[in-house]
Amino acid sequence: MKTQKIPEATITRLSVYSRFLSVVEASGINSISSGEIAEGTGGTPAQVRKDLAYFGDFGTRGVGYNVPSLNEAIKEILGVDKPWRMVLVGAGNLGSALAHYSGFRNRGFEIMAAFDNDIRKVGMTLSGLPILPIGDMAAYIAEHDIQIAIITVPGPAAQDIGDELADTGISGILNFSPTTLSMPDRVSVRNIDLTVNLEVLSFIITNRDFLAGGDLVE
Amino acid sequence: MKTQKIPEATITRLSVYSRFLSVVEASGINSISSGEIAEGTGGTPAQVRKDLAYFGDFGTRGVGYNVPSLNEAIKEILGVDKPWRMVLVGAGNLGSALAHYSGFRNRGFEIMAAFDNDIRKVGMTLSGLPILPIGDMAAYIAEHDIQIAIITVPGPAAQDIGDELADTGISGILNFSPTTLSMPDRVSVRNIDLTVNLEVLSFIITNRDFLAGGDLVE
Repeated sequence: MKTQKIPEATITRLSVYSRFLSVVEASGINSISSGEIAEGTGGTPAQVRKDLAYFGDFGTRGVGYNVPSLNEAIKEILGVDKPWRMVLVGAGNLGSALAHYSGFRNRGFEIMAAFDNDIRKVGMTLSGLPILPIGDMAAYIAEHDIQIAIITVPGPAAQDIGDELADTGISGILNFSPTTLSMPDRVSVRNIDLTVNLEVLSFIITNRDFLAGGDLVE
Repeated sequence: MKTQKIPEATITRLSVYSRFLSVVEASGINSISSGEIAEGTGGTPAQVRKDLAYFGDFGTRGVGYNVPSLNEAIKEILGVDKPWRMVLVGAGNLGSALAHYSGFRNRGFEIMAAFDNDIRKVGMTLSGLPILPIGDMAAYIAEHDIQIAIITVPGPAAQDIGDELADTGISGILNFSPTTLSMPDRVSVRNIDLTVNLEVLSFIITNRDFLAGGDLVE
């Protein structure tokens, strides 16, 4: 697979396509066109074909795509053909919301435990997850072969957590803190800074008349 | 201002620069170099200069940037030089976490009320916000001049909410549901699909050896 120049937007759309295909597949439909995928996901048929073409030739001209095969292929590309074990670091309000979030579990991402440095929380549960002390995190990650950590601690605490995670075998971090984490190359970081997203929206609203098509360049 | 070709990544970095500059400004420091901004935000000096150059010429060679002036200019670009009034649609776990989230309020984004269709929640409060019935939403938005709605309802309910919002004077939506909303052009939509973000991370981890530099094209 040659993925050197894949746009991030293509990967985000593949995730959307796959979840749509899962719904279609569950309804027993076996064949689908790029037009139907586009209609179900708010895109265009040309974009669907272009996104898929980065990874191979999945459809048959005039026949369309086999739904289970295409979905299986996309899941394999995204790496969601196998389960992921995760921990949550920070058992606050956002951590609690994520512990409840069924969208992760439905796609094979399972949060195994939550960690917090507040000793009043330790020993309690968060949506059924045990809340454990931060000091036990490294041992837990090794013992349970955890691959992803979700960080929801406040900004000033995030790099310390990152430093502790760097010494474990973790592969990736979903970082909700506003801190830009400095991590070794073998740990991939994906930032979801909620305030940044809101400020991008306020930029777009404020500058709508100046932006071509109302959109930024992805 | 000529903003037709501004990368989204530049806007996300401007938001990060501005929050960093606010901390610097509060500490009483009056002058800063692009190198210091880069160091404080995890970027490079050349990137800082390039991001700012889209919008004008803010610094003085050999002297650097005046911190309050630069921060004020960036806030004006982002549209966060004035307050924004928002409502929350969906008073579930994620809505509750966002109602608690201080990162929004610190930047002038205020959530005024929450709306939910669960009559058991209506009349209660969510982190101090009144929870009101969805049926009152349009009137509330008009009366309180609400500009942004944050949607945290489940996917299948999101387009109905979008349709109701389309008939109000709202300018933008921060959409946490996995549904791709179909909205009129005068309503800007910013999606934060948590599962998509996790799947982009799993893609990067899974395909790290194939990706140049470990990153996707922005």
